[in-house]
Amino acid sequence: MIDFQYLSSIRKQTASKIVMIVVDGLGGMTNPSTGQSELEAAVLPNLDRLAANSSCGVSTPVLPGITPGSGPGHMALFGYNPIKYLLGRGVLEGLGIGAPIGKGDVAARGNFCLLGDDGKILDRRAGRITTKECVELVELLKQIEIPGLGIEIYPVMDYRFVLVFKGEASSPNVSETDPQITGVAPLVSNPTSDGGTGTALAVNLFTQRSMEILKEHKGSANGILLRGFSNIPELPHFGSSYALNPAAIAAYPMYRGVAGLLGMEVLNSKQTFEDEIKTLEMNFSKGYDYFFLHYKPADSAGEDGNFSQKVAMLEEFDKKLERIVQLEPDVIVICGDHSTPSYISSHSWHPVPFLINSNLSQGKVGGQFTENSCREGTIGDIRAEELMLLVLSHAGKLNKFGP
Amino acid sequence: MIDFQYLSSIRKQTASKIVMIVVDGLGGMTNPSTGQSELEAAVLPNLDRLAANSSCGVSTPVLPGITPGSGPGHMALFGYNPIKYLLGRGVLEGLGIGAPIGKGDVAARGNFCLLGDDGKILDRRAGRITTKECVELVELLKQIEIPGLGIEIYPVMDYRFVLVFKGEASSPNVSETDPQITGVAPLVSNPTSDGGTGTALAVNLFTQRSMEILKEHKGSANGILLRGFSNIPELPHFGSSYALNPAAIAAYPMYRGVAGLLGMEVLNSKQTFEDEIKTLEMNFSKGYDYFFLHYKPADSAGEDGNFSQKVAMLEEFDKKLERIVQLEPDVIVICGDHSTPSYISSHSWHPVPFLINSNLSQGKVGGQFTENSCREGTIGDIRAEELMLLVLSHAGKLNKFGP
Repeated sequence: MIDFQYLSSIRKQTASKIVMIVVDGLGGMTNPSTGQSELEAAVLPNLDRLAANSSCGVSTPVLPGITPGSGPGHMALFGYNPIKYLLGRGVLEGLGIGAPIGKGDVAARGNFCLLGDDGKILDRRAGRITTKECVELVELLKQIEIPGLGIEIYPVMDYRFVLVFKGEASSPNVSETDPQITGVAPLVSNPTSDGGTGTALAVNLFTQRSMEILKEHKGSANGILLRGFSNIPELPHFGSSYALNPAAIAAYPMYRGVAGLLGMEVLNSKQTFEDEIKTLEMNFSKGYDYFFLHYKPADSAGEDGNFSQKVAMLEEFDKKLERIVQLEPDVIVICGDHSTPSYISSHSWHPVPFLINSNLSQGKVGGQFTENSCREGTIGDIRAEELMLLVLSHAGKLNKFGP
Repeated sequence: MIDFQYLSSIRKQTASKIVMIVVDGLGGMTNPSTGQSELEAAVLPNLDRLAANSSCGVSTPVLPGITPGSGPGHMALFGYNPIKYLLGRGVLEGLGIGAPIGKGDVAARGNFCLLGDDGKILDRRAGRITTKECVELVELLKQIEIPGLGIEIYPVMDYRFVLVFKGEASSPNVSETDPQITGVAPLVSNPTSDGGTGTALAVNLFTQRSMEILKEHKGSANGILLRGFSNIPELPHFGSSYALNPAAIAAYPMYRGVAGLLGMEVLNSKQTFEDEIKTLEMNFSKGYDYFFLHYKPADSAGEDGNFSQKVAMLEEFDKKLERIVQLEPDVIVICGDHSTPSYISSHSWHPVPFLINSNLSQGKVGGQFTENSCREGTIGDIRAEELMLLVLSHAGKLNKFGP
């Protein structure tokens, strides 16, 4: 992990190339009706063959029992302590739509909502208005001006938008206006530290003007709720911390955004995993020695609570994996940011299986790529933030520590 | 663990009820003559059935290789770092006899001892005097008065007593008078920080007056030795930290005392585990959502070095467990504060098996409730202070961390 203070004295630049594939929501749970997890039920010849010759283990994203969001899940895999380097909701939401958020900017997640005549919240999502209406309403709010403050506002999806206050005068240290319950009025934003006074004022002014504009418009929403005020924290640079020349390939903007924040070069890629692999193939022999590749569909199926769809998406990944193996990277890593068991239709705290394959990896007879088999692998149970150290050592990129 | 700074933002109050049973000294070691540990030798149908459907693991109480006392063992299970929140010997000894120790009071453990004519210690335990004589001697010492200082003194057992200096002027920062060897004189107490000057003076005055009184009495003891000066540390409140409404059921005063310090409601119960279960049954449908239940006999048998008695006490627990299962708690946790292998007749450092059973637990075919089987469970090896996070997540009482 980057918090190992001697890392800079032992890392070593070599020609070896690492491909690290993050299968979003990789781990699962036993489905009571079948007695198997998704990984156990899936037919995964390529993964199983690889696992039998790989150093395998399971990674705990944050702490035992703690279910991570995608932000902490990915930060940990890249070696950043997910508690110390927590990315705020506003920033992640902004990254998720590719909004340009600069150093010092403050981003918040917004909801269009419905207020009663008494000013109390009737519906925090304004009846889940359409994305089309969201775009219209955001256009209306763009007319709001606050002297001395840059304001950007972006539609996201349905009732959600992102608000960005530009510039150094902004502070994330302000309280949220979203009470996250109905039947009460939106909250007034207050500074939570000295620096937040001006921003809290701006938040309340913006909220007030939005209500006036929305009331006049007579659409489905007549108010806004803001939460997750955050800016981009000081982050060690991924490439220079590990002496790597890293590239990121991800179809979804949020993962591109996180990789970009860490200083990875984000390669252009179209929407499917097929497209991502093409991008990898085209860039493989260029100067990069680390590729982060993101596979989303397994997580989506898990979130939908669809066991057989998650199995299918894992099998789909297994098929595609062949093309990546054919590139003959020196190190292949397959890991996940968190588990998403279809049994509970959500992220979970369960440790996530991983494999590291290189000429230095240690396989185990009978090894398979499942939760239980990987736990019994030659690495065993680690914190996710320790994974990168093992990846570097399997790549021959770390010297001895201490005399 | 409570040191996870974001706990208050993710904990969730729900209707689910947790019963957490601490089997004192649960873990054991292989007995060379049988080739089995106590848990392996015992016939435990209820525990084995539960284990096969539970998330199992082993918990290291403090650090690998460190053998904990009962204090650190329990603090860790409740999620308190056992090093940071170390309860002193004087305080624990006081809690063990139900002595009222308030905020700011300083408690010490005392020995009646035998000194030679030269003032050097001949026997640190005064020939292990009877509890009856201890009570008499304590009565005598109650006449000691030190201006401006409240003094309470309680007999414990045999040669042991507890001394409490009452009130805010007292300080635990004084050195011990017990050198823990014979052939030297009792030590003079000195302040170990500025605040300790007055208390050190009082300790030496009390020791001097005790010697005068005991000399006059001409009993088996003619001196006292004091150690473990301590007060009650600042402790986060168990219930509000976890958003739980907790109750404790324990026959032994020390465990009731620890639970009380953490802010649990200590329910009245008589002396046996049978009595404890009755108390649980009577209170189960009241407003509590977390019950701590303490089972002592396995530890006592281990301390006595009695393998077959420990096996019998585990089997006894297994039988009683049925009544707890019949209450249908949403979550059943069975864990231990430390191992007490009868092979070594004492507490040990060995990781302690545990199981967590709920509708979210992950069992494993062939799972049993033994040291080795639990280590191969779906949770594996954790620090004891992490257990509560897993308990809460199995109870559905934790939201996602981070966006």
